[in-house]
Amino acid sequence: MFVVLTYDIEVKKINKVRKILKKYLVWTQNSVFEGEITEGKLQKCIGQIGKIIDKNEDSIYIYIVENPKNIVKNKLGKEKALDELIL
Amino acid sequence: MFVVLTYDIEVKKINKVRKILKKYLVWTQNSVFEGEITEGKLQKCIGQIGKIIDKNEDSIYIYIVENPKNIVKNKLGKEKALDELIL
Repeated sequence: MFVVLTYDIEVKKINKVRKILKKYLVWTQNSVFEGEITEGKLQKCIGQIGKIIDKNEDSIYIYIVENPKNIVKNKLGKEKALDELIL
Repeated sequence: MFVVLTYDIEVKKINKVRKILKKYLVWTQNSVFEGEITEGKLQKCIGQIGKIIDKNEDSIYIYIVENPKNIVKNKLGKEKALDELIL
């Protein structure tokens, strides 16, 4: 499956969450990760993040497309190079 | 079609871009809009935004799923209420 994961997370937790996400998905914009992943790995990833975030404050959306062929990504402007992303 | 639009835009242009996006899509996280839209309206939206952003600096990704049934959105944590989003 193909996943786009977006988040609004309290600043002091962001690095911890990103560290986990980088093991599973590709960091493509400051609050966006994407990539192909298995159901099992996605559940594992969500489980780890769920232990860090405050479910009353933080917000994570996971857009899932079973068949990667069913999603197209267009870009306007530049593709963010990983080193440009705020660490 | 269903669209998830994410962006990293220079702060001083963000309000202008959001103003346009709100005419076409739903603002769901600080740098995320989503919703169902026609090809024609999406092109019109992108044309308007393209006049505002700096294509060498700003980054907009448009994830397109032709059939809205092919995308599922899961949430971890809270659904951002529009008034909580940074204006």
